[in-house]
Amino acid sequence: MCHFAVGIQARLDALAAISAEAGALTRVYLSPEQARADALVGAWMREAGLSPRLDAAGNLIGRVEGRAPGGPALVLGSHLDTVRDAGRYDGPLGVLTALACVAAWLREDGPPPFAVEVVGFADEEGTRFCSTLIGSRAFAGRLDPALLAATDAAGISLAEALRTFGLDPDRIGEASRRPGDILGYLELHIEQGPMLEGTGLPVGAVTAISGATRLAVTLRGEAGHAGTVAMAGRRDALAGAAECVLAVEARCRAEADLVGTVGAIEVRPGAVNVIPGEARFSLDLRAPDDARRVSALADIEAAWRAIADRRGLGLATTRTHEAAATPCDPRLTEAVAEAIAAEGHPVLRLPSGAGHDGMAVAALAPIAMIFVRCRGGISHNPAEFASLPDIEVGARVMLRTLRALAADHVR
Amino acid sequence: MCHFAVGIQARLDALAAISAEAGALTRVYLSPEQARADALVGAWMREAGLSPRLDAAGNLIGRVEGRAPGGPALVLGSHLDTVRDAGRYDGPLGVLTALACVAAWLREDGPPPFAVEVVGFADEEGTRFCSTLIGSRAFAGRLDPALLAATDAAGISLAEALRTFGLDPDRIGEASRRPGDILGYLELHIEQGPMLEGTGLPVGAVTAISGATRLAVTLRGEAGHAGTVAMAGRRDALAGAAECVLAVEARCRAEADLVGTVGAIEVRPGAVNVIPGEARFSLDLRAPDDARRVSALADIEAAWRAIADRRGLGLATTRTHEAAATPCDPRLTEAVAEAIAAEGHPVLRLPSGAGHDGMAVAALAPIAMIFVRCRGGISHNPAEFASLPDIEVGARVMLRTLRALAADHVR
Repeated sequence: MCHFAVGIQARLDALAAISAEAGALTRVYLSPEQARADALVGAWMREAGLSPRLDAAGNLIGRVEGRAPGGPALVLGSHLDTVRDAGRYDGPLGVLTALACVAAWLREDGPPPFAVEVVGFADEEGTRFCSTLIGSRAFAGRLDPALLAATDAAGISLAEALRTFGLDPDRIGEASRRPGDILGYLELHIEQGPMLEGTGLPVGAVTAISGATRLAVTLRGEAGHAGTVAMAGRRDALAGAAECVLAVEARCRAEADLVGTVGAIEVRPGAVNVIPGEARFSLDLRAPDDARRVSALADIEAAWRAIADRRGLGLATTRTHEAAATPCDPRLTEAVAEAIAAEGHPVLRLPSGAGHDGMAVAALAPIAMIFVRCRGGISHNPAEFASLPDIEVGARVMLRTLRALAADHVR
Repeated sequence: MCHFAVGIQARLDALAAISAEAGALTRVYLSPEQARADALVGAWMREAGLSPRLDAAGNLIGRVEGRAPGGPALVLGSHLDTVRDAGRYDGPLGVLTALACVAAWLREDGPPPFAVEVVGFADEEGTRFCSTLIGSRAFAGRLDPALLAATDAAGISLAEALRTFGLDPDRIGEASRRPGDILGYLELHIEQGPMLEGTGLPVGAVTAISGATRLAVTLRGEAGHAGTVAMAGRRDALAGAAECVLAVEARCRAEADLVGTVGAIEVRPGAVNVIPGEARFSLDLRAPDDARRVSALADIEAAWRAIADRRGLGLATTRTHEAAATPCDPRLTEAVAEAIAAEGHPVLRLPSGAGHDGMAVAALAPIAMIFVRCRGGISHNPAEFASLPDIEVGARVMLRTLRALAADHVR
């Protein structure tokens, strides 16, 4: 019954064998492994009836023309690069599912009404140059050329890496697509979270890619001897930080789809018999829309200030990361939701807490995403897993969406 | 007006010059610096009319006989060893104040009714062998001979170090005094805390040396992606630890003289975008009497269990340190309190949250302690400071206590 999934899984396994490390999957941007993966996926594209090419940023693009050659294209895809010691589903599942769907669609429905492109973005993870979405940002015309000077761990710049890969860094701007060229972008991806598993559903429709704010926070109190300073005379930075952690939790629990995390904490001097004089901790706050994130952040910072004032602690916060939310296009997402329902599944609409290529592509065209359940919500880990039946549902939803969009286009 | 203090301060400064490090005060047990300090203090003892000797553990003991030669002695003192990069008051102030008082007493009051010994304990800090109170434990007959095998950072055993210092490790038991030989032990020490400064008093009477329990605590939850796991589905070990920290603070704030500190905390994996799956933290809990410490610990552990249960976290605690409280002798302490009052100061009775030689000596004889205010409560630091007027008050209180005990003894 897993018509699509068996083939997709076989290709996932073949791609997973292309790695820079024996016994682990690591395939980074502009590496020899990318070239091997591109060659393999390019051959599969040709087999499906698409013409593959590498764009100026190294993205692999397979295209089939619609009725009007050179006309605007519906883009399906995801990324082919990985984190270090990755799972095999994060990225490639979306590319290979798109390819399987387009192949079936072309085979069964004949020439498409509009052009379709299947894209394997070359860099989503940012593993090599510590800057994510290089591939999709170049595609969307949103890549700052200053990034060409960024270097990897070996000191090789992005410009040099492009050259070594056979590309011309001076022409990276040519990867940029014009808004009128892209009808929309549809990406299938594993959820990388536990919500589908928690609700017992194989797939879901993504409402937005959450925006995120990250802060580095320092609370300064006064260190002192754990035995000689009475409780009333203390300015304990960790006790203050503990209240701040709970304030984040309380605020985020009060609102659906809002998540706040203190993932790192450090106290100084950090000895068992010394009252902490300083506590440093991080905040990662995400919400599917910016207004809610901004409002939650303001509430959290106000709560922290009140805690610091009451305890006589110094509070300093630095913003280390800020990304706006990327709403998915309502019309495209509705098509996904209808396809899920038509496949006989309840429709769960959920935000994506993790980042995706769609964040970049959204600057260019409407986007939508299909999430596929993954076991335990585990990702960025060799234990990453999506089942054949779930992959099958994902592929069927994507194909049904494609047909609906085509029917809609013809009407 | 600082008759005693000027002389004591000059000697503190002279002793502070005897250090293993240029520009910092470090004088550890059985070091060449101890020998130099012993020689200097021994000379001052002779000058005061005391006969100095080194006991089998390296403690420096200056004695003057009372009416019955060889009779039981009142012991005054503190320690001559230091932590690394120490202040000059912690330890030596008590030895030198005792010496100044006994000198004045012998000079002004003539032959004493009972023997008096001024002791400079050789190891209180435990800097060298990571085991505190070696000097006073040997004096009290409470030193486990197994400790002779303990080694310092250079791999030198206590036994070897004693030999190098000119002592015989096989005879260390001879340092042990019989209970009937010691009438009592009175120690003056800087407070090493902020309570006297907070109440504006130069000196205080110590009620007890607090007992302490230390725990190493681990909370285990589940790590997860900070963006994809909804708040309701989290088992965040740091959020649990934050509640535990605040439970310690709340319980200890509810009771005077009880202090609880979480001084160290660590979370894993400890990344800004990952929900903490594990939190490890320490607890240091102290109270001047054991029943209160035990009761507070039970309450804290019960609160932690409730927090862990409610949050679905695993809780494991390991006891890393346990020391019973050492109550000061009510009669001796009353003599100290009366002397403080007679000197014109309100009497603050306070526990000692830090450890002292009296903890060991209490096994042998009644003990009492006089605390002298130190600036900012700072100790174990070159910035440690006690003022001349405060030292003067401390010396006058000690001399007055000595005279009161003598008068009482004669009656």
